[in-house]
Amino acid sequence: MDIENFAFQVIAKQGKARAGLLTTLHGDIETPIFMPVGTQATVKSLTPAQLDEIGVQILLSNTYHLYLRPGADLIEKFGDLHQFMKWNKPILTDSGGFQVFSLGDLRKIDSDGVTFKSHLDGSMHRFTPEKSISIQEKLGADIIMAFDECSDPENYQYSIKAMERTHRWAERCIAAKQRKDQALFGIVQGGIHADLREQSAVFLTSLNFPGYAIGGLSVGESKVDMLNTIELVNGVLPEGKPRYLMGVGTPFDLVEGIRRGVDMFDCVLPTRLARHHAAMTLSGRMNLSKAAYKSDALPIDDTCTCYTCQNFSRGYIRHLINAKEILASTLLSIHNVFTLVKLSKDLRRHIIEQDFDEYAELVLSNLEKEDS
Amino acid sequence: MDIENFAFQVIAKQGKARAGLLTTLHGDIETPIFMPVGTQATVKSLTPAQLDEIGVQILLSNTYHLYLRPGADLIEKFGDLHQFMKWNKPILTDSGGFQVFSLGDLRKIDSDGVTFKSHLDGSMHRFTPEKSISIQEKLGADIIMAFDECSDPENYQYSIKAMERTHRWAERCIAAKQRKDQALFGIVQGGIHADLREQSAVFLTSLNFPGYAIGGLSVGESKVDMLNTIELVNGVLPEGKPRYLMGVGTPFDLVEGIRRGVDMFDCVLPTRLARHHAAMTLSGRMNLSKAAYKSDALPIDDTCTCYTCQNFSRGYIRHLINAKEILASTLLSIHNVFTLVKLSKDLRRHIIEQDFDEYAELVLSNLEKEDS
Repeated sequence: MDIENFAFQVIAKQGKARAGLLTTLHGDIETPIFMPVGTQATVKSLTPAQLDEIGVQILLSNTYHLYLRPGADLIEKFGDLHQFMKWNKPILTDSGGFQVFSLGDLRKIDSDGVTFKSHLDGSMHRFTPEKSISIQEKLGADIIMAFDECSDPENYQYSIKAMERTHRWAERCIAAKQRKDQALFGIVQGGIHADLREQSAVFLTSLNFPGYAIGGLSVGESKVDMLNTIELVNGVLPEGKPRYLMGVGTPFDLVEGIRRGVDMFDCVLPTRLARHHAAMTLSGRMNLSKAAYKSDALPIDDTCTCYTCQNFSRGYIRHLINAKEILASTLLSIHNVFTLVKLSKDLRRHIIEQDFDEYAELVLSNLEKEDS
Repeated sequence: MDIENFAFQVIAKQGKARAGLLTTLHGDIETPIFMPVGTQATVKSLTPAQLDEIGVQILLSNTYHLYLRPGADLIEKFGDLHQFMKWNKPILTDSGGFQVFSLGDLRKIDSDGVTFKSHLDGSMHRFTPEKSISIQEKLGADIIMAFDECSDPENYQYSIKAMERTHRWAERCIAAKQRKDQALFGIVQGGIHADLREQSAVFLTSLNFPGYAIGGLSVGESKVDMLNTIELVNGVLPEGKPRYLMGVGTPFDLVEGIRRGVDMFDCVLPTRLARHHAAMTLSGRMNLSKAAYKSDALPIDDTCTCYTCQNFSRGYIRHLINAKEILASTLLSIHNVFTLVKLSKDLRRHIIEQDFDEYAELVLSNLEKEDS
């Protein structure tokens, strides 16, 4: 595929872990990288200036949500999604596939696409590979995703069917794509079945995408199945292209994913946990609403250098939660996103310094079991 | 009264309008100044870093709310309110008087103080002048307020009674005060009655407070009565002390108050309007939830230099409101607080440059009637 302003380079490796540099029209991204999610053209409770200060290099936004509200045509009137939400660094949009499949009874899949009911107003809509690409071209992200079908990962027959559909749709996405300044990533499916995952990775590699995603994981399968699948798929995907593990983002998952050659991650977890009063740390989660923190003058994590930990006490955050103040969400979101961005940055440095394994073991040994 | 680290200097005058410099332990304040309100130890939806960037020089916080939650003793454990909420610039706390009187049926006033029911859990509490000072000393603001009684401004008999009680309580507040690093301001009462306001201003001046507030206005009286009362009171109060008009804060009120010699203002309006989707501008209010703004690429105010107007369109803010995103409140709060802080700064400059009247007329002629 002919793409302008997009390149990927592996600059260091240790075992299967890779430190890379991804170049896009809106700037470079040092990989491995965690991408926070701005579902509705905003990372909930944070300004772009705060995201910048956290060190966020690339955001993910959701095609399904933006298509329904405010609409891709409206965003195009403002230029593109970068200009609409004033995030001038790289953006990745998903295809809408995962979201429409998640609608359950509200959607019907056929070989050509998916018909679904809006969760907002019940109106009927239809996504096809061509439609998804058309919307994503209007949104104008630097990286866009092929329209795929996520199966029940343990159901072998369904996983075959969804994988084959995903492959045909991948070809249609390539054919439909017109813009030359966006990189289209293919998505490997196949549930937790080694033969299907291998077949999918081989087939998609033959289509020569500029990057690849591993889809359909972290949707109910065991951690062992998830990690084995990542390892298997990355063994097939080409070395010189970026690999993106979709929808995954605990500290444990980052370490184990990067160890197995993943370059990119996204997850709503840090901002969702923040709204539920929880802080992510490298020694487990903390629920800041607990009365135990009432007069606690320590920061969430006294080794953390985020704005929240550099300034505010657990006791103050607990007060904000108790008083139902919005600032609680903002401060916890800053900390949680920072934690994952910083972890990916630290892991990258240790790959370059060739002591990744030691650092990975240290991080994993500190993480409490409930966080894994 | 013997106070350390507190001084006020009038550096320029034009007519009755004054440009001054207020010195406190936590820094200098250029007056006239608008103070945003951080009721529960947070200016709703804004971080201290954002307040700093807006140019906020001093915050107000509410004794009644902080006393109930998280409690003055708890805040004292963190050092003081500055350290608890990490606002290292000046803070002013009110006395709790206005809030408990606003409880209506939930409170009972006697000559010694007020017994009231918590609006949070119905528990019974009692404020006296001594109690209010004790709480405010624990909170540790730079400027604290005398405990006063606000009357129904048009009821002459009640206004006499409330004023006399306010005077006795003012003396008790002075006697109760122990800390030497906080400036206690007296509050002039007397409703809209010229004889009472004059009597109150004369009496409080005799107590030699380091600063004076005009209380009991903007509580239902007409604009004409409000402005006449301000003019009358400021004619009696000493020139060399700061004058604070409590709870007032539209652009119209700032211009007319400053024109009559007011130095300080506070109001919840900018952050409250933000939560109700309204932007304050010097040409009137805008409700950003309107469909008319859907594809509007202009900022709220294209002459405004706040972070919101420098970056975001009306159309984007309208989308955030429509999608119920927290960022809408944050961006509107930044703009609204900035508008009032900037207006007070501009009015100050024009006092120094001796063209205040021309600028004031220009601002007033641009304001739409519904904003006044």
